Formats: sequence, structure tokens, C-alpha cells
Amino acid sequence: MSNAYQRLCETFTRLARFSHLDAIAGWDMQTCMPSGGSAARTEALTELRILSHQILTDPHVGELLQQAQQEPLSDEQHASLREMARRYGHAVVLPESLVSAQALAGMHCEHAWREQRRNNDWQGFLKNFTEVVRLSREEAQIRAQASGLSRYDALLDRYEPGMTAARLDAIFAQVKQWLPSLLQQIIEKQRSQTLTESQGPFSVEQQRALGVDVMGLLGFDFNHGRLDVSAHPFCGGVPDDVRITTRYNEQDFLGALLGIIHETGHARYEQNLPRQWAGLPIAEARSTAIHESQSLLFEMQLARGTPFLNVLRPYVQKHFGDQNAFHGENFIRINHRVQPGFIRIDADEVSYPAHVILRYEIERALIEGEIEAGDIPEIWNKKMMDYLGLDTRGNYRDGCMQDIHWTDGAFGYFPTYTLGAMYAAQLFAAVRRCHPSLDENIAHGDLSLLFTWLRENIWQHGSRFDTDTLIRNATGETLNPEWFRRHIEQRYLS
Amino acid sequence: MSNAYQRLCETFTRLARFSHLDAIAGWDMQTCMPSGGSAARTEALTELRILSHQILTDPHVGELLQQAQQEPLSDEQHASLREMARRYGHAVVLPESLVSAQALAGMHCEHAWREQRRNNDWQGFLKNFTEVVRLSREEAQIRAQASGLSRYDALLDRYEPGMTAARLDAIFAQVKQWLPSLLQQIIEKQRSQTLTESQGPFSVEQQRALGVDVMGLLGFDFNHGRLDVSAHPFCGGVPDDVRITTRYNEQDFLGALLGIIHETGHARYEQNLPRQWAGLPIAEARSTAIHESQSLLFEMQLARGTPFLNVLRPYVQKHFGDQNAFHGENFIRINHRVQPGFIRIDADEVSYPAHVILRYEIERALIEGEIEAGDIPEIWNKKMMDYLGLDTRGNYRDGCMQDIHWTDGAFGYFPTYTLGAMYAAQLFAAVRRCHPSLDENIAHGDLSLLFTWLRENIWQHGSRFDTDTLIRNATGETLNPEWFRRHIEQRYLS
Repeated sequence: MSNAYQRLCETFTRLARFSHLDAIAGWDMQTCMPSGGSAARTEALTELRILSHQILTDPHVGELLQQAQQEPLSDEQHASLREMARRYGHAVVLPESLVSAQALAGMHCEHAWREQRRNNDWQGFLKNFTEVVRLSREEAQIRAQASGLSRYDALLDRYEPGMTAARLDAIFAQVKQWLPSLLQQIIEKQRSQTLTESQGPFSVEQQRALGVDVMGLLGFDFNHGRLDVSAHPFCGGVPDDVRITTRYNEQDFLGALLGIIHETGHARYEQNLPRQWAGLPIAEARSTAIHESQSLLFEMQLARGTPFLNVLRPYVQKHFGDQNAFHGENFIRINHRVQPGFIRIDADEVSYPAHVILRYEIERALIEGEIEAGDIPEIWNKKMMDYLGLDTRGNYRDGCMQDIHWTDGAFGYFPTYTLGAMYAAQLFAAVRRCHPSLDENIAHGDLSLLFTWLRENIWQHGSRFDTDTLIRNATGETLNPEWFRRHIEQRYLS
Repeated sequence: MSNAYQRLCETFTRLARFSHLDAIAGWDMQTCMPSGGSAARTEALTELRILSHQILTDPHVGELLQQAQQEPLSDEQHASLREMARRYGHAVVLPESLVSAQALAGMHCEHAWREQRRNNDWQGFLKNFTEVVRLSREEAQIRAQASGLSRYDALLDRYEPGMTAARLDAIFAQVKQWLPSLLQQIIEKQRSQTLTESQGPFSVEQQRALGVDVMGLLGFDFNHGRLDVSAHPFCGGVPDDVRITTRYNEQDFLGALLGIIHETGHARYEQNLPRQWAGLPIAEARSTAIHESQSLLFEMQLARGTPFLNVLRPYVQKHFGDQNAFHGENFIRINHRVQPGFIRIDADEVSYPAHVILRYEIERALIEGEIEAGDIPEIWNKKMMDYLGLDTRGNYRDGCMQDIHWTDGAFGYFPTYTLGAMYAAQLFAAVRRCHPSLDENIAHGDLSLLFTWLRENIWQHGSRFDTDTLIRNATGETLNPEWFRRHIEQRYLS
């Protein structure tokens, strides 16, 4: 009889229901809520988070976790219990007062950031942000003491269980070795290409209609999700009701379109998580990097590949009419253009790792106490110059204030983007090995081989396996950044 | 020292925060949520309602309410305590299992109703609805035993404290005496009028833009609210973030426009509730009928009055161009047209009470056990024929399935619409007495006298006074239906 385990299931199901309301109210905050609703919403969400923290960290949960270890459980239930224990362990070390202070400070900072970013107001932002950093350092210190990890590793573990700064340093050191010269070669090669730009304006309504069409092609289930607009695109909601967002620029439809494809990758992972464990931690996505591997697999591996671009072309023509820019090789080249720029989320996949490494180096130093929040702009400027040759002085809006992540203390998140890109390359290569006709099928608009493989190898497992096991089962090896490098070389230099 | 009272304030503030999340997730359910999200949302909201019920009915709250009675409190705090006790008393009598079953059955029935109404599927609806009725009868029985009221009165008291079926019967008996002949006279009088109809289509975008303009004219604060679309228009959200909805018909812009004006009346009440008590029951609207009096004061007393219609005219012309239908007396007549129809929310103010009396009579008999859910269509048909001369046989969609209220067991709500219409007439007459220049000011587009009066006499008081006191303070007498009759006669027969 698995009595303790059953009671844990009830508790975690209850937490998932509160988390559902958090997700929807959070989505609303980014997409619908008028500015004046912020204070009351922040209070309401903070109250809910305190409650969830109390329920999760109740000593009784700790006892049940111990008791359940002694019960006769199936392999799946053991994995489920492991994920419950992980969740509990992460929460129980934090005092409720800190959780509450972080929720408040984070929402406050994030909300003000929207306006401050528009106004390039670093000093205004710094005031709120300093408090966020202070609380995150406190969190890191507590987690480090409890886990024996370094302070930054302790935060990183929230998003990427098992990942460490040491392992990241090794990976990023490699990237820093090959990336600059590769980037130069690609820029050099593309310099001789002539490109015909597409001609705007592309109305928001038409862009949206195109996005919805392409989401359908990519298997997004509109009975369990929707597409909206927010300042910073994201994938939110719950598996039964996945909310993705984008933002439109009437002069450039590709940004929103590829953003939608990116979020659709996240959404399909969510929509295909294992229903039989719904409400339990094991039913959730494996990690932030694995989540990002799905969005980047959709955006970078699939959608920017030549076979899919040829499928995408008639969709674009259907909505925007025929333009020379959409013809033949030109349409491919527009989507393969490599051009270092200020904005991470607009970056091509070749310069993207530089944005991530820069943020990783800054946030690690910030959390470890080697630098202060006020030092960020100067370090940012220097690294942007070093890595991408761009001068960002005085331009906070497109510099260190461009991202939402730090505003609510999500330190340790950024590295998962590049880990995700690497996993995506490794996974896509594995699908190709498994299905030699993959590219041909894609070129005919048949994406079923890809989606079936992803469902069977990634989506349906939720958090049943740890990341290394999941990836080894799917690809025959654990994370191997070589696949990413090979992908870049093949796409841009072959 | 008011220690118990302070602790009650903390508890009720916490409840208000959970209620905030309920309101937003509920709004989302009506306006955004895809159909497939329903099951998970229902579970999440039910979990939250169980939690709120538990917090509110904790025996400790009962003890604190008793202790606080002994504390030295200000008059305002005494009123606040009275409202807390009322809330507690209403909740504590219900077993948690019933609350949970009602929440689930109600959301289930309501969600299915959307589709069933479209399909005119009474049998499908009846299956869910029978369960809703069964649970509401159980609730009525429990409340009746606890309060000494009749079963229907016990449900009515949730919306309209102090109101009884006996008092309603007296009021409605009067209305049934004068309404039929008045209605006939008006129809007779209008028969000789020739009307030029406006020519659609009126695009949803333009209708929305007009609605937003008029909301601005009516003082809606867009920093604390927004306008959206839902199948059944409502005013939801929280005072800091009021969410009103409408639905558009491209052939008739007036329905949506007057609906928006109606919801704006609700919204301004919410947006102007007393902030100094925010989070406490005393800061909430006095009752459902008083809430409705504000929406009907905006829609019927103000907006359909000739002075305001002349202000509205150029707004309509700005968005839809010049049409003969908008000219002179014709525009007034379109808005004063009396024409009995199937749909309550589309009804003119003269035939509206018939819709309400019909529903009141049916729901009271249903709750008192005199009829069963399956009997409703036949009784509905008979009463529609008796009261308005309309044959609704077989047309469930536009008959007994047209309203959302019964789907989640809101029995006792319908009478508040006509009470609201009566309070609205009484209040508007009082503003006129207070400000003899009122109509002249309105004709010049200056609504400040009206809004200031409403803020000072109704909005800012929240639930500080009971309904009779509030209305007596504002108008010099308690509810007097004569003002409504006089309003109808003056507008339609003078």
C-alpha cells in the first residue's frame, strides 16, 4: 500500500492547481492588465505564492517523503517521488519571509522595468534591481549552505538540475575558442551576397493570421492554447491551456513569425507532456534547457533549415503577396543572415552564444559578490565590444536593460538558452540518423516523423529521467556541444 | 486596542487577494480561455474556493468576530465588523463538500451551456442543470434552517440583504397591475411613428472604438480597467482592474454600445469604491440591486435620456458617418423604441420587468420545490405568452436557455435587475431635485454633477450602510417603485 505516496500526490495536485491560477494571472499581467492593476495583482500573487510555499514546506510533507521511500513503488512512482523531493528540497531551505520579499520585489521591479526600459532609465531601474540582487544573493547563500554547491551553482540548479559553473565554463571556453573566427568567416562569406529586403508594412492582423497558420502547420492545438501579444514574448499558461505571445513590428514580419515558431516549440512540449501524471512534478518539463531545446529545435533546426523554408514560403506569399524578397535563394539567405546586434532575442544563432556567455559571466560575478549591480553597464559595454564589436554605451534599453529575466531574480537562467541550442542540434542530428528521409519529408511539408520522434523521445517523458539519461536515451550520448558547432558550420559555411 | 478586529482585517484582506485571482481567472474563462482548458480551470478555481471557504469558516474567525464586538471600535469599524459577520454567517452554514460540489457543477454546467445554447440543446443542458438545481435546493434548505427565512428568501439574501419574496411579491403585483396597459399604450403610441433604421454593417473595430470613446466620456478609468468580448456581457475583475465585456452584432451597433454604457455604470461603482477600506467587505458594493441601479442609471436614466442622446449623436456620426437614422427626433425614437422580444438583455426598459417577473416566479417555485427543472420550458412558454404575447415553444436558445445565471445556481439574482431599475429611477430623480440644472448640464456634455452626486451618495460608501439607510440618506425615502413608473410614463407617454 502506498499511502504516503498517495497523500503526496494529493498535495502536489493541489499545488499544481494553485500554480495554474498563478500562471493565468501572470499571463494576464503581461498581456492584458492595465498598469494601474499592478499593485493589487502583485499582492494577490504574492499571497498565493506564500500559501504554496507553506503547503509545500509543511513538515508533514517532509515526513511523507521519508515514509514514501519505504513504500513499494513502481519505477515511475520512484521517479515521481524523486521529483517531489527535489521540489520540496528546493523550497524548504528558504524562509517564507524571503520568498515573500522576492515575489514582491521581483514583480515590482519587473513592472517598473517596462516603463523604465522605454525611457532608457537605468538609474530608476537600478534602485529596484539592487533590492532584487540583494535578495537573490541571500537566496544563493542559503541554497549554497544547504546543498554544498557554490552560490551560483545553487541558483543554476533551480533551472538546470546537475549543471554547474565548472561544466559551463568548460563548454563556453570551447565556444569562445571557435566562435569568433567562425563568426568572422560567415560574415565574410555573406558580405559578397546581395540580398533583396522584403517591403513592409506588414499589418499586425496579417502577421497574426500568418502566425496562426504556421502554428497550425506545426501542430499547435488551439483547443488547448492561444496566441497573444506581450512586450517580451513567452510561453505560459498550463499544459491544458498554453499561452504563447509574440510582438509585432510592421516593418519586419520575420521577427514575430520566427518568435511564434520558437514559442510553438515550447508549447508543443507543454501540450504533449504526460497526461497520466498530470498535476505531479514528474509530469512537468525536464528542465529549462530541455524546454529551450524544443523551442530552438523548432526555430533554428527546423524552421530556418532550407527544406522547411521552402514549405514556409507559400504561407508568406499567401498573406503578404508575392515579393522578390520571398523568391528562391533570397528567402533562404534572409533567414540565414548573420549579423551581430544589440538584442539577444533578435540575434542569429551564430552570435547568440556571445549574448549568453556575456550574461552568464556577469550574473555569476554578481551572485558571487565579485561585482555590484551598479557595475553592470560598464562590464556589459566592455564585453559587447570584445565579443561582438558593438558599442552599447549609454544605450541601456538595448543593453543591460533589454531582458526581463534579471528583473525578478531569475539568475542562472541565461545559460540554459545556449545549452538548449546545443541540445537542439544534438537532438535534430539524432532524428536525422533515425530517419534518413527526414529532410525530404520536411521539404514535402510532412513533419510527422519529427513530431513523433520528439513525442516518443522527449515530450512524453516529462521529468521521469534526469537530463543526462533523457538525452543519452534519445541520442546515444550526453550533451555534446560538437553537434552545435557542426550544425553552424554546415548551415553557414558549407 | 482592537486586536481581534485587526486580525479579522488581515484574514479578510487575504481572502480578497484570493478573490482577486478568482475574478481574473474567471474573467479569462469567459473571454480568452480555449474550450479545452475548461476542466483544469474548473479544478483550479474549485480548489481556490474550497480554500477560501476554509479560511473564512475557520472557527477562529467566529471567535474573533465575537471578541471584536467587545473592542472599542469606531462607527466605521462597527459597520465593517457587521459586514464581516454577514460574510462569515453566510459561509459557515454551508458544508465544504456542498461548496465544492456547487463550484464544480456550476462551472461544468456553465461551460457546456455555451455550446448547448448555440445548439438549442435543452435535453443536454437539463442533465447538468438538474444537478445544479439539486445542489441549490440543498443550499436553500440549509440556509433556511440557519436563518429562519424561507428557502427562496435565504438564497435571495445572498444578493440582496433584507429583501424577501413577500416584499417582492408586493412590488411585482403592483407592476403587473400597471405594466400591461402602459405597455399597450406605448406600443399604440409608437405604432404611428415612422422610423428610419440605421444601415449596417458596423464593423467590430469601429464599434469598439466608439465604445471606448463613450467609456471615456462616462469617466471609465482605463488605467484601472479594460473592455473585451464575451458571449454574455458582464463586469468583472477587481476595483483596481475592472474588466467589462460586450458582444458585437455588425447589423446593430446600439446593442453593444448601450451594453457598454451599462457595464460602465457597474465599472464606475467598482472603480470608486472606498479605497481606504480596500480588501475588507465594507469596501465592496452594497448589494446586487444597488450595483444594478448604477448600470441602469447609466444606461436607462442617463444614456437613453434625450439630453445625453444629443451628446452621443456626434460620437456615433464620428465613427459611422452621417446617416438619416442618426438625425433629429429619429435618433431619439430609435433609443426609445418599445418592442417586446425574446431576449432579456436586449429588452427595452418597459418590457424588461416582465422578463424578470417571469424568471423570479419560475426560480422561486423551483427552489421551493413546487416545480422541477424539466417543467421550465412549458411554464416559460406560458408566461411569455401571458406577459409579452410571445410564442417561444421549441426555441430554448432564446427562451429559458438564454441567460447564464441559472447555469451556476445564481437563484435569487434576477429580481435585483428590476429592483435596480427602480432604485435607478429613484436616484436619478433625487439628483434632479438636488441639481435642477442637471438635464441642461448633461445636454452640454457636462456629467460632473451626476458623477459627483453618485460618488458622494452611493459609490464612496461601499457597504457601510444597509440598503435602506443608503437609499434613505441619498433620496429621503427607502425603495419607492413609484419613481420607476413615473419615469416610464414621462419618457414614453408625455
